Parts: sequence; C-alpha cells; structure tokens
Amino acid sequence: MSTGSPLLADLIDALRCLPGVGAKTAQRMAFHVLERDRSGGRRLSERLALAVERIGNCTRCRTFSEEPVCALCANTSRDRSLLCIVETPVDQAAIEQATGFRGHYFVLLGRLSPLDGMGPKELGLDALAQRLGEGEVKELIAATNPTVEGEATAHLLAQLARAAGVRASRLAHGVPLGGELEFIDRGTLAHAFGGRQSLS
Amino acid sequence: MSTGSPLLADLIDALRCLPGVGAKTAQRMAFHVLERDRSGGRRLSERLALAVERIGNCTRCRTFSEEPVCALCANTSRDRSLLCIVETPVDQAAIEQATGFRGHYFVLLGRLSPLDGMGPKELGLDALAQRLGEGEVKELIAATNPTVEGEATAHLLAQLARAAGVRASRLAHGVPLGGELEFIDRGTLAHAFGGRQSLS
Repeated sequence: MSTGSPLLADLIDALRCLPGVGAKTAQRMAFHVLERDRSGGRRLSERLALAVERIGNCTRCRTFSEEPVCALCANTSRDRSLLCIVETPVDQAAIEQATGFRGHYFVLLGRLSPLDGMGPKELGLDALAQRLGEGEVKELIAATNPTVEGEATAHLLAQLARAAGVRASRLAHGVPLGGELEFIDRGTLAHAFGGRQSLS
Repeated sequence: MSTGSPLLADLIDALRCLPGVGAKTAQRMAFHVLERDRSGGRRLSERLALAVERIGNCTRCRTFSEEPVCALCANTSRDRSLLCIVETPVDQAAIEQATGFRGHYFVLLGRLSPLDGMGPKELGLDALAQRLGEGEVKELIAATNPTVEGEATAHLLAQLARAAGVRASRLAHGVPLGGELEFIDRGTLAHAFGGRQSLS
C-alpha cells in the first residue's frame, strides 16, 4: 500500500485471508471500514476473535459449536430417528434453510479422499457407527455432494447403515428447478430420465 | 444461521459491515475462516482492532496515518513544489500505484457537496489555503473525480490556487487506454476531441 501507513498495509494484507478477497477488494474493504464504519470494524474484530477462540465442534454431530453439544443436537423436539449426513457445516446450513427437515445431522467435516488423508477415521465414521448401533436412528440420509468423492462417501455410508440394520437413502438427482433441458449436462439428464416418476 | 451456534451467527452478521458482502458471502467467509484459516482469522481480528484504534489522519495532508505526520509528508526526498489534491486516500493510493508522481498530496476526505454538509471547511480548504500561502507549492494538481461534484471541487481549488498565485492543473480527460471509440460515452469523446494533441 502506498499511503504510507504500515498499520493500514497490515490490515489490507490480513483481509486477504477471506475467500474471494484479492488485493483490490482488500484495499476497498480497509478504506471503507476506516472511512465509514469504524464501529462495524471494531465489532467484527471482537466477534472474529471470539469465534476463532471459542467455536469448536459438537461432540455429537461434529458441526461448529461453542458448546460441547450444539443447540441442534440438544433440541429434544427434533426427530431422533432421522439422521442426515453432510460433508460440511455449510451443507448443513443449506439444508436447514431450504428444507423442512426436522431430524438430526452428522457432519463428516470432509469427504472420503485417501490421497488427502481423509479416511473413515478422519470422517468420524466410528462415532457414526456407534450412533447407528444405539438403535434410535431408523433412516440415514446421505446428503453428500454429487461428486466422485461424495458418491464414494455415500457408498460407504450405505454400507455402515446396512451393517447396523438402518435404512439408507440419498438426495434425488435430477433436473434442477428452473433449469432448461437444453443446458443441463448429460449425466444429470440421464439420471433424471432414469429416475423418472409417475405423474399420478 | 441455522447450525445453532450464536457466536457463528454473530460473526456472519458482523462480516456484513464489509462492502459488497451480503448474507451468503458472509456465511462463506465465516465457514472458511473457521474450517481452514483460524490463524488468518486471529491475525485479521488483531490488525483490524489496531487499525480502527490507531489510524487517524495526517495533520498535514489528512490521509490515513497512525503518526501525526504520515510517512509520505515526512519524506524529504519528495518534491515539495507539487501538490496533488485528491478526494480520498483510495484515490491517493491509485495515483501512487499508477504514476511516477513524486510530489506531495492533500486529501479532501470528500468533495464539495453542500447538501451532504460537505463545504470548504469540511474539506480542510483553510489548511490548504494556508499551505499554498507558505510559498513552497508551485503547482496544484486537482485530481478530483470527473463527476459534477468533483468538477465543482476542482473549480474551487483553481480559485484557491489563483488567490495564492499558484499554477493549477487538472487530470486530462479523454479516451481511456484500450477503450474503443464505439463504446465511449459522448461526453468523454467530445472532451477527447476538443482536447486533441498534435502528433509531433
């Protein structure tokens, strides 16, 4: 930075840890905070420090939580017979926001990817197997991403479920709402065609 | 946020003070920091607090500075006879990065805009007049933006310069490099045509 303030240069540099923020955007953010929103900047600093310090993982579902057991796992009004398995807390948030799912979650914090050192142990599958063994869960919903690794993970989850005598399901593949057939990739279209449903 | 962590929800909310960051982006940033870059998050928190706390304005040129006089004003190797007037520290940074200008700056921290309460006093024009009166400055370069308010500000700066017997100039208007005549607005094209330069 060229205005001659080392603290400002440090701030601009630090802002680049945020995803999608390059040199220009970081500069704009720093100037914006200093010029127009110092109280917002102070609040962000405090909350960021608190979050980084205090937020760990729920001991039960592994999502982000500052408590040993997250609010969602502690909620007794949710259906304990449904367990939705997601790769990350972001996926969990997306499902919570989009669907009416009222069961529980288990967050893998990754996907099966042996080359990156992500095996069954890293994904917490022993804890998951133990939970399935407790007998409360009746259906496991594999909501992993429709990627090669996600599909492999779903496969492994199905095996776990079978071993515990739990029904397993996964998200439907098909044409997205508002999509046009013309522009949909062949794999998705083939899936949608193969999994067609009766118009009853 | 729906993962049941109040600290996480607070962080996502606080991130929205950054320009161009909405709910989705804030969520992605928060998850990214917590999942992949806690040390970056900690550093950002510290630097943000320091910057917001310590960075004020240079008493001489009004740019952002944690010292009473910024590094640029304190630099004795720069040409004190050239004074470039800009609206904001961002504009100053842009000129420093793009040009070989080695003179000094004066930052208005705004532009003439009586309806928003930005008059000559708010722009520090008394300090500027005093500085011009000191006799060191030989040329004032009005680098305000080519907007209506910026042009009005440049006008006022020219008056100040004339009163102090200082030469005034402003940035050239014209066709931007790499631009195509076909797509350039009429005002700019008229300016570029009127201000045509001899091909010597």
